[in-house]
Amino acid sequence: MGANSTGLTELPVYEKLMKLAREPYDLTIPGAVAPERIAAYKASAVGFDLLYSTQRVDDAVLNALQQLADQSGAVDQFLAMKRGAVMNRIEGFESENRQVLHTACRDIFKDIPYNAEASLQAKQQLENLEHFLAGLDSGEISPLQGEKFTDYINIGIGGSDLGPRALYLALSAYARENKRVHFISNVDPDDAAAILKRIDLSRTLVGVVSKSGTTLETLTNEEFVRNAYKQAGLDSRQHFVAITGQGSPMDNPEKYLHSFHMYDYIGGRYSATSMVGAVMLGFGLGFEAFKEILRGAHAMDLAAEEKDIRKNPPLLLALLGIWNHNFLDCETVAVLPYSQALLRFPAHLQQCDMESNGKSVTRNGQNVANATGPIVWGEPGTNGQHAFYQLLHQGTTVVPAEFIGFRKNQYDLDLEIEGTTSQEKLIANLLAQVLALATGKKAENPNRFFAGNRPSSILIADKLDPFTMGSLLALYEAKIVLQGFIWNINSFDQEGVQLGKVLANRFLDHFIIGRQGQAKDRSTYPESWAMLEAAGLFKEG
Amino acid sequence: MGANSTGLTELPVYEKLMKLAREPYDLTIPGAVAPERIAAYKASAVGFDLLYSTQRVDDAVLNALQQLADQSGAVDQFLAMKRGAVMNRIEGFESENRQVLHTACRDIFKDIPYNAEASLQAKQQLENLEHFLAGLDSGEISPLQGEKFTDYINIGIGGSDLGPRALYLALSAYARENKRVHFISNVDPDDAAAILKRIDLSRTLVGVVSKSGTTLETLTNEEFVRNAYKQAGLDSRQHFVAITGQGSPMDNPEKYLHSFHMYDYIGGRYSATSMVGAVMLGFGLGFEAFKEILRGAHAMDLAAEEKDIRKNPPLLLALLGIWNHNFLDCETVAVLPYSQALLRFPAHLQQCDMESNGKSVTRNGQNVANATGPIVWGEPGTNGQHAFYQLLHQGTTVVPAEFIGFRKNQYDLDLEIEGTTSQEKLIANLLAQVLALATGKKAENPNRFFAGNRPSSILIADKLDPFTMGSLLALYEAKIVLQGFIWNINSFDQEGVQLGKVLANRFLDHFIIGRQGQAKDRSTYPESWAMLEAAGLFKEG
Repeated sequence: MGANSTGLTELPVYEKLMKLAREPYDLTIPGAVAPERIAAYKASAVGFDLLYSTQRVDDAVLNALQQLADQSGAVDQFLAMKRGAVMNRIEGFESENRQVLHTACRDIFKDIPYNAEASLQAKQQLENLEHFLAGLDSGEISPLQGEKFTDYINIGIGGSDLGPRALYLALSAYARENKRVHFISNVDPDDAAAILKRIDLSRTLVGVVSKSGTTLETLTNEEFVRNAYKQAGLDSRQHFVAITGQGSPMDNPEKYLHSFHMYDYIGGRYSATSMVGAVMLGFGLGFEAFKEILRGAHAMDLAAEEKDIRKNPPLLLALLGIWNHNFLDCETVAVLPYSQALLRFPAHLQQCDMESNGKSVTRNGQNVANATGPIVWGEPGTNGQHAFYQLLHQGTTVVPAEFIGFRKNQYDLDLEIEGTTSQEKLIANLLAQVLALATGKKAENPNRFFAGNRPSSILIADKLDPFTMGSLLALYEAKIVLQGFIWNINSFDQEGVQLGKVLANRFLDHFIIGRQGQAKDRSTYPESWAMLEAAGLFKEG
Repeated sequence: MGANSTGLTELPVYEKLMKLAREPYDLTIPGAVAPERIAAYKASAVGFDLLYSTQRVDDAVLNALQQLADQSGAVDQFLAMKRGAVMNRIEGFESENRQVLHTACRDIFKDIPYNAEASLQAKQQLENLEHFLAGLDSGEISPLQGEKFTDYINIGIGGSDLGPRALYLALSAYARENKRVHFISNVDPDDAAAILKRIDLSRTLVGVVSKSGTTLETLTNEEFVRNAYKQAGLDSRQHFVAITGQGSPMDNPEKYLHSFHMYDYIGGRYSATSMVGAVMLGFGLGFEAFKEILRGAHAMDLAAEEKDIRKNPPLLLALLGIWNHNFLDCETVAVLPYSQALLRFPAHLQQCDMESNGKSVTRNGQNVANATGPIVWGEPGTNGQHAFYQLLHQGTTVVPAEFIGFRKNQYDLDLEIEGTTSQEKLIANLLAQVLALATGKKAENPNRFFAGNRPSSILIADKLDPFTMGSLLALYEAKIVLQGFIWNINSFDQEGVQLGKVLANRFLDHFIIGRQGQAKDRSTYPESWAMLEAAGLFKEG
């Protein structure tokens, strides 16, 4: 694909990096994290500063990482992706064979978008949404004379849930008056029941999100909620909107008040800035706030084109990740936002990263010769400090960490206690952790010894507002695809989820057979019948 | 300590396990997960079945793991802990030197408790709580004539937040009518602001939880909320209760309506069944529901005394974890509850496990010779299937998984769609994932190949009610301490959090100096000043 048709291990710079990794920069030597280094190891774009003096790199490693970026053609591939190259494919084998154009949703602000057709479709859908939201606001679109919708339920799972939900929670400080958003994702009936228990269906708009229009959990929950409407004597068609692929089974005006379209060139985990996030966020935060998210994302999409790694935060973050993962052998990466509003952002990244890069074959269908995507996990600080940071500081496993922070808080409410505000306490803790992890501390008492050399970086911006959230989202999306390009894997399919779906259907068939009182032929699928029985789910008769 | 004064690598059975690990049981061979194996590899206690036929173990490995349990004296140490041995110590060095008696909160149901004094204190606090809750219910304790408290804010962080919050969310299907619980934990001012924005302070009871009475985040948030009371013209003393150590700075009737006590023999991460969880859960779910949690935990505490690993789910889970971590070299473990109500249970376990076992020295102050606690992470299924499971199935890193499921759902609301209920769809997916991860699948298309041999187990019980939740909590608490005993580490201290605290204070001093307009002497702490400046937080002048 494009410049890169080999894997990481075949690139000329690979051996050099392996050699450098034998003696990585020692952060624990007094003066190793010096003021000059702190000032110099900083990459900035779109209001974000990436501080990386506490990574185990020096100029030699950075130069080699620059070569890695160049030799893999990562940025060229990123540009090719934005222009509409068919990046979602495995050469020589049946695969999705699709373009990858989530950035086109943001390229609408460009005079000449990279991909005119996709950005035009994005614009048309935005106009469709703007018109619809205006109809809600004027009361024109309403099931009740004069009354407006106050609540919104988002029914979707995976990419149709995590990204949009993370964005909504991140920005709920900016929520519109008297508009509330709820989420149903899990096929667990208690997920829907808990929501249905506490809302007024008559004032609720329900957005059902599924690109294919066939997602088991989503269709099940849709039926579940429609049934509640029916029991309440309400016409669900007046309350349900579809966010789905054009022509999918869900693209049906007889069942939905309105339809919004998504296209097959946007994968679920990259879809938060398409209609998948737009309808819910437009309802909850307003159309202008959503456009600000797009503007922020677009600005970062452009910043990610920079070829000098020292001036490109997403590219540098990608390369530091590869350094820690492939060369310093760390299996995981912790994302630690010092912002309670970002409480679900690590879960979104967990999906976006692990589903994209948790792969074992190259884009040529060869087995990869190196580790691909890491395990991504994390929780907001300072909470995490009182939870799992013990292991980060003194455990036997090194966990590289990506800290995220903001200079200002969101609400207009803070208090000075003992000389500092809560926001200052928050950011002081972030900085302290980064320094402590890097430098460690000698001690006579072995239990109070800190080995240090635990690498981390800081992403800091002014304030988590819609524009900044859009930038942060795009920064990580770019990081993830750039890593995939360097590993020469297809970051855009998810064949790994198929086997579980097939086997789940087998168990469902067993349940149906049990319910219908049919004879259970254990010889057909002996293992699955045995598992049902061992789990106490096998009903005789 | 007790039977075990050596580390894992010094136990006689260690070499045997290392040898066995060279050729672990191959789950991908046709017939490897046979019905007989599925039926036989099952350990049951207190309504929980642990199914482990999809772990990479055979009878030889299980026998060796039994020897590991015996040689390390894990169960004897567990009993010694319950009786009041000083397990929280490092021999020969300054350490906390405390007993570890969270189980005493549950031993109250025993005729002769293992530790009479601690169980008596637990009983007295329960009576204290019962009386207090009755006063709330009768309206006797109320700031408003006749009106009752409807809302409760829990202010606490780490163990004073995660465990109690996970339990409350797990059981919110059983919440009392017109009682709502909210949580403030993060020092991020937006955490408190978001809550204060949406509640009626006049009807709210605030529980402040800190054993030492000195936790920075908690005291800050307490002040923050008290300030809101003041601004609303309300007397906060009528609304605030303290949950703290006897004699701590917070144990002060002039400031609090009521005090509940916790003791230094219960660590924060093990404190959910002490007053730390009791007051909030008693308010939200009722006193009887809380006692059911204790009953369930007590039953599991007793079950964990069984020496035959095939009959002791927590011990077996501990040993399978050590097999995967120390012998099959997996750095992480995923906890995957197929129950939306358990959405924060993985975060609680993340703390309980990683803060307990993320250690590098033995209880004799020696450096450990083996990996200690793994990285614990996870999200509820089926959501995770649409997120990170791609990596579990096809990534280059093997992630052992612990699935948790229930035969019945909580709410009395489910629907049959296409022949099966949502609950059946949920559990079918759980079973399918376990089988898919273990057996894998051959394929011509390399991108549709599943390597299999990804070990997991299933914990299944009937229904997530208070008793079952108590059992599940105690099961994992026991698993964690048993692993610590086998590794010969102190699972009860957290020295690793100290360095960050010290450095945070340094940054706070910098902020104070900046605010007071004092001269900034950069020569004292050049790195921290440089970090502030690089982060754009250094104000000149």
